Amino acid sequence: MKIGIDGMGGDNAPAEVVKGAVEASKQIEDEIILFGDQDTLLSHLAAYTYNKEQIRVSHAADVISNHDAPVRSVRTKTESSMVKGIQAVKEEEIDVFISAGNTGALMAGGLFILGRIPGIDRPALATVLPSIIGSKPMLLLDSGANSECKPGNLLEFGVMGSIYMNRVLGVSRPQIGLVNIGAEETKGTTVTKAAYELLSKSKVKFIGNVEARDIPTGPCDVLVCDGFVGNVILKLTEGVALSLLKLLKDKFTEGTKAKLGAFLLLDKFKDLKTMLDYSEYGGAPILGVKGALVKMHGSSNANAVKNTILKARPYVENHVVRTIHDEVLSIEDTELEE
Amino acid sequence: MKIGIDGMGGDNAPAEVVKGAVEASKQIEDEIILFGDQDTLLSHLAAYTYNKEQIRVSHAADVISNHDAPVRSVRTKTESSMVKGIQAVKEEEIDVFISAGNTGALMAGGLFILGRIPGIDRPALATVLPSIIGSKPMLLLDSGANSECKPGNLLEFGVMGSIYMNRVLGVSRPQIGLVNIGAEETKGTTVTKAAYELLSKSKVKFIGNVEARDIPTGPCDVLVCDGFVGNVILKLTEGVALSLLKLLKDKFTEGTKAKLGAFLLLDKFKDLKTMLDYSEYGGAPILGVKGALVKMHGSSNANAVKNTILKARPYVENHVVRTIHDEVLSIEDTELEE
Repeated sequence: MKIGIDGMGGDNAPAEVVKGAVEASKQIEDEIILFGDQDTLLSHLAAYTYNKEQIRVSHAADVISNHDAPVRSVRTKTESSMVKGIQAVKEEEIDVFISAGNTGALMAGGLFILGRIPGIDRPALATVLPSIIGSKPMLLLDSGANSECKPGNLLEFGVMGSIYMNRVLGVSRPQIGLVNIGAEETKGTTVTKAAYELLSKSKVKFIGNVEARDIPTGPCDVLVCDGFVGNVILKLTEGVALSLLKLLKDKFTEGTKAKLGAFLLLDKFKDLKTMLDYSEYGGAPILGVKGALVKMHGSSNANAVKNTILKARPYVENHVVRTIHDEVLSIEDTELEE
Repeated sequence: MKIGIDGMGGDNAPAEVVKGAVEASKQIEDEIILFGDQDTLLSHLAAYTYNKEQIRVSHAADVISNHDAPVRSVRTKTESSMVKGIQAVKEEEIDVFISAGNTGALMAGGLFILGRIPGIDRPALATVLPSIIGSKPMLLLDSGANSECKPGNLLEFGVMGSIYMNRVLGVSRPQIGLVNIGAEETKGTTVTKAAYELLSKSKVKFIGNVEARDIPTGPCDVLVCDGFVGNVILKLTEGVALSLLKLLKDKFTEGTKAKLGAFLLLDKFKDLKTMLDYSEYGGAPILGVKGALVKMHGSSNANAVKNTILKARPYVENHVVRTIHDEVLSIEDTELEE
């Protein structure tokens, strides 16, 4: 397998990306191709001992930054590490491309360079959320790519999410929940009501509406919503958790007694940080395009890069893209027969 | 002033409602009228020493439960404590009515019995959120009454929220933020983009888009969004905070060392709980109807009831309802002049 990585995308590129790639290479035998400025990437690689047959650099002279307009940058910056990486997926030179760079540009590149899987109206960004109480991770989609969705889009998200959780995280018959403002099927907007009906009639294991209060307890395997709500869920969970941890830190360093108490709990705090760490779960796949693309958090460190590379393997090996293609065609057949 | 309370609404009614009313009566001189079954309420009151001139019962034979359909129950259960309370506001027998009962029914009662303030298309449920890092509270509206909104509705929410925060919580020139998925004005849905423009041109102090990650830090005084997103923000903040505190509790009672550490931090935990306690900030007003209605959390305890009664005073005294009426008329005049 050939795994491509954007060596120039993200807040900590290229240093952490290169480090993460080297660390991943010790655990797998697959080839890793770093896209980006050859001199820069080779000078970073020179700091490590690595197998030169396993990690190589594919030169790209330009970079798409987070400030670039997604669609225009994909069309004009044809020599960028991101565009060249997505092109390499299209030409089957690599099996998957991973980037911590501009999310909108990666989505636009997926749409324009790879194209949509037939039958998929809106590809989605799918993010793995750690559940805070339970131990199982949940896939949230769409987590920000499509701020306005039709009921059929939400059905597609359920189908694609189900396939990903089954093939990549090994969940048999994943449970699909619809984010809504009440448990009853009559709750919500015209879109969520229609999506409820479509999901109920579909082949996925639909468990009904999920209220926001229950999300942190991990009530299902796949959480479906539009990209506006998905973005709010993702960012608010992160914001509340970070704010609370900061508040705890401030409170627990007020006075000697508190400091001693906090010292005794130090290892428990570390456990907690690991449980809440998104980087343990790998990146966010863009589901619905004709090729494997994975978005990493913009501030990914070497550990997140390594984990994303490791999680990209089952994504490719278990043919997620082809399975979505086949399943969506079969859904369309069923609907036409009715 | 005469403050009416639904003695039968909410998970802990009538016991906690009666207790909270008695506690509040010791701090104010206003009359408190409990709506509900006379025998039940009097028997609960009998457990306390209270001023019989100050607290009295207005008999209502029926109750609207949380399972009742909002619109139908308001139309058919005319002898319920909620309908009789709202009627009493209309007939100016009381100045404000507070209920911990069915939210949808309270909103429907406001619309059908009191009616909308002229110029307000959609009354909103406005909830005070404690900010986790800063100490200042934020008003979130709509927090669940209108799951689909037009840009003009979001402008109305900004204007009404601004008046409430100024008149009731004493904030001069409240800062208004629009919940969105990015900081730039071009981000979001067609509705949020149009609302951004309307709010920019309005008289309120609009600070632009607010991303969900920043909400816990209290970036503004009034947070505007549709009721679907508002409900997600309210419930998810509560869910994440509760789940994290539970996780902490579990972690901090694993082993003797951790238990000792947690013991030393006990008073800090108590501080934290107070900071996160919604009941300190009073209830959620329904803004935009012709009368003062306040919704309390369904699981309100006596302390929450007491605080809601105390916060209802400035709501009435500072003429929030009349100010909204006057301001909205002046906005319409300005818009017509353009």
